[in-house]
Amino acid sequence: MNDERPIKKDWRYDLHEIIYEADTKAGKLFDVILLWLILFSVLLVMLESVEQLNDQYFEFFNIAEWVVTALFTIEYIARIITVRRPLSYIFSFYGLIDFLSTIPKYISLFLVGTQVLVAFRALRLLRIFRILKLHHYVGESQKITNALRASRTRILVFLFAILLICIVLGAVMYLVEDHESGFTSIPKSVYWAIVTLTTVGYGDIAPQSVTGQFIASLIMILGYAIIAIPTGIITSEMTKANAGEPALSTQNSCPNCSAEGHLYNAKYCYRCGTWLKDYENA
Amino acid sequence: MNDERPIKKDWRYDLHEIIYEADTKAGKLFDVILLWLILFSVLLVMLESVEQLNDQYFEFFNIAEWVVTALFTIEYIARIITVRRPLSYIFSFYGLIDFLSTIPKYISLFLVGTQVLVAFRALRLLRIFRILKLHHYVGESQKITNALRASRTRILVFLFAILLICIVLGAVMYLVEDHESGFTSIPKSVYWAIVTLTTVGYGDIAPQSVTGQFIASLIMILGYAIIAIPTGIITSEMTKANAGEPALSTQNSCPNCSAEGHLYNAKYCYRCGTWLKDYENA
Amino acid sequence: MNDERPIKKDWRYDLHEIIYEADTKAGKLFDVILLWLILFSVLLVMLESVEQLNDQYFEFFNIAEWVVTALFTIEYIARIITVRRPLSYIFSFYGLIDFLSTIPKYISLFLVGTQVLVAFRALRLLRIFRILKLHHYVGESQKITNALRASRTRILVFLFAILLICIVLGAVMYLVEDHESGFTSIPKSVYWAIVTLTTVGYGDIAPQSVTGQFIASLIMILGYAIIAIPTGIITSEMTKANAGEPALSTQNSCPNCSAEGHLYNAKYCYRCGTWLKDYENA
Amino acid sequence: MNDERPIKKDWRYDLHEIIYEADTKAGKLFDVILLWLILFSVLLVMLESVEQLNDQYFEFFNIAEWVVTALFTIEYIARIITVRRPLSYIFSFYGLIDFLSTIPKYISLFLVGTQVLVAFRALRLLRIFRILKLHHYVGESQKITNALRASRTRILVFLFAILLICIVLGAVMYLVEDHESGFTSIPKSVYWAIVTLTTVGYGDIAPQSVTGQFIASLIMILGYAIIAIPTGIITSEMTKANAGEPALSTQNSCPNCSAEGHLYNAKYCYRCGTWLKDYENA
Repeated sequence: MNDERPIKKDWRYDLHEIIYEADTKAGKLFDVILLWLILFSVLLVMLESVEQLNDQYFEFFNIAEWVVTALFTIEYIARIITVRRPLSYIFSFYGLIDFLSTIPKYISLFLVGTQVLVAFRALRLLRIFRILKLHHYVGESQKITNALRASRTRILVFLFAILLICIVLGAVMYLVEDHESGFTSIPKSVYWAIVTLTTVGYGDIAPQSVTGQFIASLIMILGYAIIAIPTGIITSEMTKANAGEPALSTQNSCPNCSAEGHLYNAKYCYRCGTWLKDYENA
Repeated sequence: MNDERPIKKDWRYDLHEIIYEADTKAGKLFDVILLWLILFSVLLVMLESVEQLNDQYFEFFNIAEWVVTALFTIEYIARIITVRRPLSYIFSFYGLIDFLSTIPKYISLFLVGTQVLVAFRALRLLRIFRILKLHHYVGESQKITNALRASRTRILVFLFAILLICIVLGAVMYLVEDHESGFTSIPKSVYWAIVTLTTVGYGDIAPQSVTGQFIASLIMILGYAIIAIPTGIITSEMTKANAGEPALSTQNSCPNCSAEGHLYNAKYCYRCGTWLKDYENA
Repeated sequence: MNDERPIKKDWRYDLHEIIYEADTKAGKLFDVILLWLILFSVLLVMLESVEQLNDQYFEFFNIAEWVVTALFTIEYIARIITVRRPLSYIFSFYGLIDFLSTIPKYISLFLVGTQVLVAFRALRLLRIFRILKLHHYVGESQKITNALRASRTRILVFLFAILLICIVLGAVMYLVEDHESGFTSIPKSVYWAIVTLTTVGYGDIAPQSVTGQFIASLIMILGYAIIAIPTGIITSEMTKANAGEPALSTQNSCPNCSAEGHLYNAKYCYRCGTWLKDYENA
Repeated sequence: MNDERPIKKDWRYDLHEIIYEADTKAGKLFDVILLWLILFSVLLVMLESVEQLNDQYFEFFNIAEWVVTALFTIEYIARIITVRRPLSYIFSFYGLIDFLSTIPKYISLFLVGTQVLVAFRALRLLRIFRILKLHHYVGESQKITNALRASRTRILVFLFAILLICIVLGAVMYLVEDHESGFTSIPKSVYWAIVTLTTVGYGDIAPQSVTGQFIASLIMILGYAIIAIPTGIITSEMTKANAGEPALSTQNSCPNCSAEGHLYNAKYCYRCGTWLKDYENA
């Protein structure tokens, strides 16, 4: 992304630094403000969907949405003019999200009162994905995604196997259970099998016959046991990744007695009392 | 399985390679096509069971089923003529599945409109198990099944213990709770205990008395805590297997004794000592 | 337990070996027969509680119960006469269970048709605990109980914390939610909090107000996250215990080339093809 | 906290030792009595909320509450007079909890029969948090909190991601599902998504349309799979901490600077370098 920045160090370069990078103080501030703006705009969309709130605070919601939309429009334009190759930004994943999540309010000027508008309004929720882009200053999320990426294939194979099991068990339940208990088709029975195996258990469809309840018991116990599999996959991956890191203690050894395993905020060696380098400067 | 292949290198040998092995390009393509065909046929069975879809698209479903059945029939015949010992294939597990999942459509010609047909139709779902046979080119599934195999006994002991706990707790609830809350017999109460312990919680049967809700709370907390046990068993197994990634077997079978599951870096068969083709050139 | 056996090697000594030990062939057979007998008797108690089954097969159940009771009586007497100190057996945990689970059928001769009988009948289910005594020939259960014992205190501290959290959250819901939604008292709200936190979710009591649903969401997410704690405790305990064991490969090295990490059932070295010692004799 | 103790070794010093420390026999006894008193008072609050119990045993509850309140009042006064800087105790977290949980009974003298009283009464439940203060003699809880602290950021990032996913999926369901199935607004749909993803599954809101059930299935399988993430995070942390059992801090505070959480084998304070009493003699 960095190769998109203008070469000359002018105002466009500085703005690019602020918008696209999080290295400078201004850049970090920009990201934090953007994060809160997105969260606020998401909250707006959510609350607007509550009919009685929308009836009561319609004016406030309308104004707030226009303010948010204006800010996002400014940001969108700023992104385009500061980037070296605007077109590649516009048609990138985040470029499209920025566009699609900003446009609905403008469209609402022309399409007043139509049902299509509801779906269009929801487009503003796409801004949530922008948060993912800001994740880079929460370095911890990297570790999680790393472990997930490493175990991706295994998890997918597992989920595929779960699906096959649910299809077979759903079909069996379809044959065994009375269709009046809710098992009216194989897809519906498969849906029920998924609800049961994942231990969600809505109870809107529940087996009534003895055989059905027996099979259901097997599915539950199965689901209860095999939840161990994705857990095992990811845990073993994380344990591996974690192996080289210090627990709570720092990796520093005492300069006097070489004792290791100090607390992460230790200023003095726990064995000989020597002053360690200040952890706040570390 | 490989010892079934004809010795002479004729068209039957080539066809055998394509159908039974996944080493060649044609063989891999065959497996992929077969996989999609099975998934399509499973989808067909599922959608046919939805009454309104079946009424509307009856013609399409009928034709599609005949096409699929024809293709599976061809495959079944090809498997029989290319294998050296046809009878041992026909009466093998997958041979029977191939037969049972292909025949329903032919039977439907004679048994039109009878209720038995529904169960017969569902036999086509057996094809799902064929997918398991294709699993070998998703090497990752091997790791999962290895960990499961290694912890099989422990998991079974655990599930048996769960069952005993559910029987005892179910019986206690049967004594404690009013039979009108749904706890009409011990088996039903045991069913409820399983629903509760596995944290499925349908809510079709729920304790009403104070004592019942107290015991239910204990069961829930118990279930919430002991889900840690299968997870612990499998995770520790996977962590161990993951640590040095030692014993991953290849997908190749021994050319002499057909033994499968060799170590990924094996040069010699562990059963008969025959030289295997070098894994680095594989 | 072994110090209870008679000193002289007479028939009582032999019988003691069979009943109390699992070293000999006869002793193992005795344990297996006892296991199935207990399971059969437990099944009987369960099925008898189903009213329609009891009405239909009353005669069969009655006879079967008498046969089972007779066999357990014989076993109980045999245990008393073969043990050196009969009183210490009679008043031991398993001695009392043997007595209490055998007596109900005899009592039923005197107390016909009374309601007390139902609870008495259920006493026969106590035989289930006898299975625990037989667990010693499923060595795997030892590993599980070891890990549980090692993490017992931590698990209890965790469950106590869960209970405190549920009390606080239940009380909050009691204040927040309308009492007509089912949150009629703090204990009931605590019950609901346990149902929610453990992700059981019956749905017989569910928050209706916005604040209530918000707090409920927090409880669910909390419950979803902290299930990781008991899992973490037990898994780390098992991983530690598991560390020294071989994964799927044996600990043997090849006598010729010293290659390690052979498959557990390997007869030949995977690297040089040398014959390894037969795994079945290992 | 220890720096609050009076310097002279008089009765106030001794009382301080008993109330604030758990090193002496009397101090431990004090903590145990306090623990049971808190649990008893919490039980009282819970049972009082059950209307029929309150009607029947009103007199008993009233007297018991006055006894408990009297004891807590004595304890509160003792804490104030034995501590060196009473104000800093009074306005500390636990000082406020002690005050707020003791006062409701006195207030009830003036505010008889008002609805506000119910909320006031519930304040007595705050005493539960006092138990957390007593946790230090259950050393095991330290290990759990250590693992949680080490993985705090990652868990929070995970929960935030879960929330974002639930918002997006809830919004999709709001668009897809008929509003009459209960998906009346985005917040309600998000609530449903949380109920489903965490596998709680009340069933008070459940999708009715085919698309809705399909998306619900995806959410369930997602929830079933990603529960592995917090588990993986905490387990890998605990496995690491468990491996060599390195960084378990003692329960002692530094006599000079009151720093807490020293390593279990620390001889010197990590903050000020003061010599701590030898842990082997502790």
